[in-house]
Amino acid sequence: IAKEVAKLLEMKAQLGGDEGKHKFVLKTPKGTRDYSPKQMAIRERVFNAIITCFKRHGAEVIDTPVFELKETLTGKYGEDSKLIYDLKDQGGELLSLRYDLTVPFARYLAMNKITNIKRYHIAKVYRRDNPAMTRGRYREFYQCDFDIAGQFDPMIPDAECLKIVHEILSDLQLGDFLIKVNDRRILDGMFAVCSVPDSKFRTICSSVDKLDKMPWEEVRSEMVGEKGLSPEAADCIAEYVQLHGGLDLIERLLQDPKLSQNKLAKEGLGDMKLLFEYLTLFGITGKISFDLSLARGLDYYTGVIFEAVLLQQENDHVEESVSVGSGAGGGRYDGLVGMFDPKGRKVPCVGVSIGIERIFSILEQRVEASEEKIRTTETQVLVASAQKKLLEERLKLISELWDAGIKAEVLYKKNPKLLNQLQYCEETGIPLVAIVGEQELKDGVVKLRVVATREEVNVRRENLVEEIRMRTSQP
Amino acid sequence: IAKEVAKLLEMKAQLGGDEGKHKFVLKTPKGTRDYSPKQMAIRERVFNAIITCFKRHGAEVIDTPVFELKETLTGKYGEDSKLIYDLKDQGGELLSLRYDLTVPFARYLAMNKITNIKRYHIAKVYRRDNPAMTRGRYREFYQCDFDIAGQFDPMIPDAECLKIVHEILSDLQLGDFLIKVNDRRILDGMFAVCSVPDSKFRTICSSVDKLDKMPWEEVRSEMVGEKGLSPEAADCIAEYVQLHGGLDLIERLLQDPKLSQNKLAKEGLGDMKLLFEYLTLFGITGKISFDLSLARGLDYYTGVIFEAVLLQQENDHVEESVSVGSGAGGGRYDGLVGMFDPKGRKVPCVGVSIGIERIFSILEQRVEASEEKIRTTETQVLVASAQKKLLEERLKLISELWDAGIKAEVLYKKNPKLLNQLQYCEETGIPLVAIVGEQELKDGVVKLRVVATREEVNVRRENLVEEIRMRTSQP
Repeated sequence: IAKEVAKLLEMKAQLGGDEGKHKFVLKTPKGTRDYSPKQMAIRERVFNAIITCFKRHGAEVIDTPVFELKETLTGKYGEDSKLIYDLKDQGGELLSLRYDLTVPFARYLAMNKITNIKRYHIAKVYRRDNPAMTRGRYREFYQCDFDIAGQFDPMIPDAECLKIVHEILSDLQLGDFLIKVNDRRILDGMFAVCSVPDSKFRTICSSVDKLDKMPWEEVRSEMVGEKGLSPEAADCIAEYVQLHGGLDLIERLLQDPKLSQNKLAKEGLGDMKLLFEYLTLFGITGKISFDLSLARGLDYYTGVIFEAVLLQQENDHVEESVSVGSGAGGGRYDGLVGMFDPKGRKVPCVGVSIGIERIFSILEQRVEASEEKIRTTETQVLVASAQKKLLEERLKLISELWDAGIKAEVLYKKNPKLLNQLQYCEETGIPLVAIVGEQELKDGVVKLRVVATREEVNVRRENLVEEIRMRTSQP
Repeated sequence: IAKEVAKLLEMKAQLGGDEGKHKFVLKTPKGTRDYSPKQMAIRERVFNAIITCFKRHGAEVIDTPVFELKETLTGKYGEDSKLIYDLKDQGGELLSLRYDLTVPFARYLAMNKITNIKRYHIAKVYRRDNPAMTRGRYREFYQCDFDIAGQFDPMIPDAECLKIVHEILSDLQLGDFLIKVNDRRILDGMFAVCSVPDSKFRTICSSVDKLDKMPWEEVRSEMVGEKGLSPEAADCIAEYVQLHGGLDLIERLLQDPKLSQNKLAKEGLGDMKLLFEYLTLFGITGKISFDLSLARGLDYYTGVIFEAVLLQQENDHVEESVSVGSGAGGGRYDGLVGMFDPKGRKVPCVGVSIGIERIFSILEQRVEASEEKIRTTETQVLVASAQKKLLEERLKLISELWDAGIKAEVLYKKNPKLLNQLQYCEETGIPLVAIVGEQELKDGVVKLRVVATREEVNVRRENLVEEIRMRTSQP
């Protein structure tokens, strides 16, 4: 009996083994996705708009590795550090995937002793967060960062960052938006005058940051319950964080009996006033709101902070609408580079990060709703034949076209039917067909067919390239 | 005494702790690098040439995540699997960084049930190899892949892949090159007729693959010593792997008394002949060599394989020359997609991967040697002032220019000296300066200065945008 059982168990194990072979999961990792050619077409449109803007403002471009030494990322992100992806220790250095592009940028500046640069960087970053993919929240996602590093006169680079957010969100026609602005010094001043203990500044700041997702009562109970803040301090904070406005509010707070006594808050308010003056010159204050509830989660900000909120449009159909949120954010971080410099030398920085994934979600949905046909190739002409045995002639002709820089395709069939070749053009949006046949070859011409109108003309072979160029040139 | 020792130890620990705080290593992970703005300018040139070629051949573009489920990569790379980067198990799925773009592509096809696509994909891949950075061998590096998937008539897509390699290496003017071609079926046929046991085909193939880096004697001793091949089989292989040539060699081998008896080899040689016919139509056989020593390391190839070798130019100075090697490679892999399909349905594929890093190394060195000045921004005009207290006027003007789509910069200083502003233009290659002053403001003009010639003209403010566009338009 024991022998029989052993035999059966062995057989079962074999079956299990075979089963296992074919039972893999066919998916991308949690919180990630592939981009199809159609999605890529939309993505490239968005990138083009953003890169054009960054270049318009004179930025250079850099790139850094997708992973950094683990210690490079340590101590930079506060409570968010738990979301960092670590690599397995396979011998050698301990590595982590980058969490944003700002810390690698600061590391780059310190490592190369750069004290002055205006650069952009577009790349993927990684966060082990709870994904909400329909709302554009992924674990692997793009950031498009523009930063200005260097010792300059106050608020000029900061104002340019806000101008950039304004330009990009306007260019992309994402509907109405609002850019909330605050300053870490005003927040810290507020915490101080509300008697928040120094040691609790950063953690209470993290709580304030949740105000865009939670009602005040929940945030308050986190402050008082979990983080041990006194109810009086919380109530004092409540007074301030409901305030938002423009220059008028800044003036009022500069007169505020408590805040105006605090050195940090006064500095922050003074600079906020200057910032609003520059934004007025740029003509963009209509979409800017000084908002004391804006805190931003990350530890490294030291001055101005901002975040752009995409507003739902009234005339959107409910079933089409996506839940929208922050489309861009950033701020000043004057201490980060110094954390990497062996001598602690500081390089003041201010920058903005465009949150591409939310923007994609919106544009993708819009394209789908509009039934707009997006071409995923740029092919100008299909090289075809109506008769059999002309593969060699098709290959000879397409080779000539490629060498002349024409974007051309051919079906990979020895003897394709003309109908199939024309259908391929219809499906993929190829505007022209160059048809070779016995007669055309004899006459030294190619029959050029316009797919949309079915018009056909014979073009002398030596004029074909020029003719295709002319007929497919973008106006 | 014990107390004193404890105290001292504690002090020492504290010192150690403090020391540790400041003693971090400021570097990128082993085998990786940052790209400076100058390097990025070269990188974008190369990408442009490659993308232009891929689009000329009608390719769509896709993207996939930087990591895959670990099991997706398992069993695809043979002996190279040990070079895969794994992520740390932080709960949830087991993940690995992609090792190439081919396996993710196959996973994408199977997952989306795509049986027919021509796509390119440009992205970074990761290999825990021994880096040799001066020779362009990195642990994080770009691959530029073009693949054709689908059931087509033989060798037409394969020939197009070789045409693409030829076009790209010619366009980039990297000097002379040679594209070696072989076929896994010919190799397997050769192994069979040399009496290599079936079970040793793949591992002996890996040894043959090392022939471009090692002399035959070393490869032979690996085959016989490490891998237990009979000396007779090794000597038989030696006969074949020294052969290379064109159509003539193919014809000769089709008559080879041993090879012609092997079904696989015969198939491979027949297709190789067809391939050479198509390559003749494309006019590129001059740089193609049918080479029986070409094996390619990866497990998944099933048919044609190829590799482009960049040849050192004679007239290069030795001290400037970089050790060059493979610039592109690829082949046919008809079984890979089937490994991911639950029912094992196959999708035949052939593709090419351009090895960008070696190409960068060569171009970077060439730029350095030529002292060519590379601009890293596209700024058309600097908005400047000669007098003090004109920051507001500069900001107003630059805002107008940005809104009109002009690439413009301004120094972030309240009162910069004109000399410093002009110097900034010289350093960064900005061709124009728009100067505002009291008098110009009164007259409704802006003084436009051409940096190169020092020529200055007054331009009416309403004509400024048009004037800048005209003077900076690329011919």
